[in-house]
Amino acid sequence: MAEILHIDHIGIAVKDLKAAIAFYENVIGIKCTSVEEVPEQKVRVAFLPSGDAEVELLESTDPEGPIAKFIEKNGEGIQHVAYRVDDLEAKLAELKEAGVRLIDEKPRRGAGGADIAFLHPKGTFGHLVELCQRPGKLK
Amino acid sequence: MAEILHIDHIGIAVKDLKAAIAFYENVIGIKCTSVEEVPEQKVRVAFLPSGDAEVELLESTDPEGPIAKFIEKNGEGIQHVAYRVDDLEAKLAELKEAGVRLIDEKPRRGAGGADIAFLHPKGTFGHLVELCQRPGKLK
Repeated sequence: MAEILHIDHIGIAVKDLKAAIAFYENVIGIKCTSVEEVPEQKVRVAFLPSGDAEVELLESTDPEGPIAKFIEKNGEGIQHVAYRVDDLEAKLAELKEAGVRLIDEKPRRGAGGADIAFLHPKGTFGHLVELCQRPGKLK
Repeated sequence: MAEILHIDHIGIAVKDLKAAIAFYENVIGIKCTSVEEVPEQKVRVAFLPSGDAEVELLESTDPEGPIAKFIEKNGEGIQHVAYRVDDLEAKLAELKEAGVRLIDEKPRRGAGGADIAFLHPKGTFGHLVELCQRPGKLK
């Protein structure tokens, strides 16, 4: 059985990445280590590690992108929580076998070089749940 | 300066605690270690540790409680993110000095024996941010 290792990150949709980074660095007190653009997701992502998890701040690069649409519907806020798993393909196969609805039945490439998959939001208690595996980083 | 140690927990507002625990245990794959009622917050909390952070599932015990009101307004979902700090009183003093708006200017007692304080949601990018210190547990 595939194993959940720990909470990997919290994805927070923001309108202004620069202002959000400043808040996390200066008020909360956690530092941004890098910013990456993920064209497939129409998003710019800032990574702020904290312990074995991290905050990912997500700014849309396109008014039609998923983050822009999330903010339009819900306002700024937490868009998803991701759990790191030791074997994503095996975990997805187990969930499919158990009848759990998935957005991604196979892993796809996400930000930071991770393989990711989303569960279908019906039945995940009001927020998007991501599973991810980071090649070469089991912990 | 007070230091942020790591993300402490994610607080998720749910209508049915038993169903939510079953989802996290059977689908996600993280286990509930205890359930506690916090009468001051009108909430029942299930703790599901995962790495150095944990998921806290929050079910209201009163239709007038903050979790019931959150769900009424937003539906089920992530209500807050908490960061563990080494010295909560010092951190709150620093934030006050810097002009950051706080709900709690002094620590108060939260679930799991932690001392907690909430930042004012104006200016925290659409979600509630908690700071907490766990006596005797610096990590």
